Amino acid sequence: MTEGIVSVTGLIAHGRGEAYDYLLGERTVPEAEAAEAAAAAMLVLAKRPMITINGNAAALAAKELGELSCASGAPMEVNLFHRSDERMAKVISFVEGETGEKVLGRDQGGILPGIASDRSRCTKEGLMAADVVLIPLEDGDRAEAMVKLGKKIISIDLNPLSRTNQEATVSVVDEVTRAVPNITLWVKKLKGDPDQARSVLANYQNKKNLASVMDRICHELKEGHV
Amino acid sequence: MTEGIVSVTGLIAHGRGEAYDYLLGERTVPEAEAAEAAAAAMLVLAKRPMITINGNAAALAAKELGELSCASGAPMEVNLFHRSDERMAKVISFVEGETGEKVLGRDQGGILPGIASDRSRCTKEGLMAADVVLIPLEDGDRAEAMVKLGKKIISIDLNPLSRTNQEATVSVVDEVTRAVPNITLWVKKLKGDPDQARSVLANYQNKKNLASVMDRICHELKEGHV
Repeated sequence: MTEGIVSVTGLIAHGRGEAYDYLLGERTVPEAEAAEAAAAAMLVLAKRPMITINGNAAALAAKELGELSCASGAPMEVNLFHRSDERMAKVISFVEGETGEKVLGRDQGGILPGIASDRSRCTKEGLMAADVVLIPLEDGDRAEAMVKLGKKIISIDLNPLSRTNQEATVSVVDEVTRAVPNITLWVKKLKGDPDQARSVLANYQNKKNLASVMDRICHELKEGHV
Repeated sequence: MTEGIVSVTGLIAHGRGEAYDYLLGERTVPEAEAAEAAAAAMLVLAKRPMITINGNAAALAAKELGELSCASGAPMEVNLFHRSDERMAKVISFVEGETGEKVLGRDQGGILPGIASDRSRCTKEGLMAADVVLIPLEDGDRAEAMVKLGKKIISIDLNPLSRTNQEATVSVVDEVTRAVPNITLWVKKLKGDPDQARSVLANYQNKKNLASVMDRICHELKEGHV
């Protein structure tokens, strides 16, 4: 935050995530493991996969997202909720420094329809052109706008009931620094084997998986294990 | 935060509270209403009630806590998790400015046993002498230390499973700006009627009430109302 990567409200959002993580026992639950495999399968099978990164994702997991970008061939693009030209430049430089990769976002010539304000801006060659988008810690409005454009969305969000998770094609309910390396592992397993990737996706049911996460949280709450 | 009242980690803690509040539907649930009545009864029946205030409680509800202090006769004392002399002075002055009341904490001659670091410090005439302590948004270590000294604790904390709520005699699972004015209302109802206050307390079962909150959260999660 003091370096301008995370916003003040980003810290509060991080706290919300922590609360849900406690309810999950601060671990990758089996439902998250299944979603991470499906996410990897979707990235592997995509024509133009990409990864969008906000301030919190950059601060928490820039290196991990860079590794996933390399493994999957999905470019990274910075898109901020609390956007200013100065903060865009800072976050892009930070992610490039952490990963050694080129990051999109300096030239935001695209517009996501249906979003008020500067948050609608994105790149034409990145987000606008993508068929599959990984959106760690994204807000619901942007997730919904991407879905309306026909994109397949992979969310990483600890709140199983968030609008982002409800909108996503694959909803990963897991902490970002646990989720991303695990998706990378799955990408490496699946990228030479599109048949297996198709099979993983065919066997994955997102709504059922989300319902199972809620059952698990309830069980933990009632048993008092958390 | 920019004024030095709330710490940076206080913002993250606030976010954790927000997440639990979503799960409760951002309202005073019936279990909270029951706990708030019991809290008021305990304050009314106490010999030396007092209210301890940290940075988040000051920022969110200084005025409301001042009104409860007036209604109940419980003095206010500032005790900080991230303590410095400068921040103590700032938060005390802030609460005094918001409430027009004298606030304890400038002279911390008491020590809570079993707590490492400066967080053990409190006032002799306030916290150390109290028999009933209202602790909004307090950490588990301090709550436990107070219970070990034989004090009765009223917590206000949105996480039903927090150590503070588990340690408390009366656990109010509600948002502080909703909870405190409601406790004040109950204090006004009960303070002229100690028999009714004793009856409210006798009929209140804290563990059962907490279990009922968890059932409610589960129900909301599964119904997807939140």
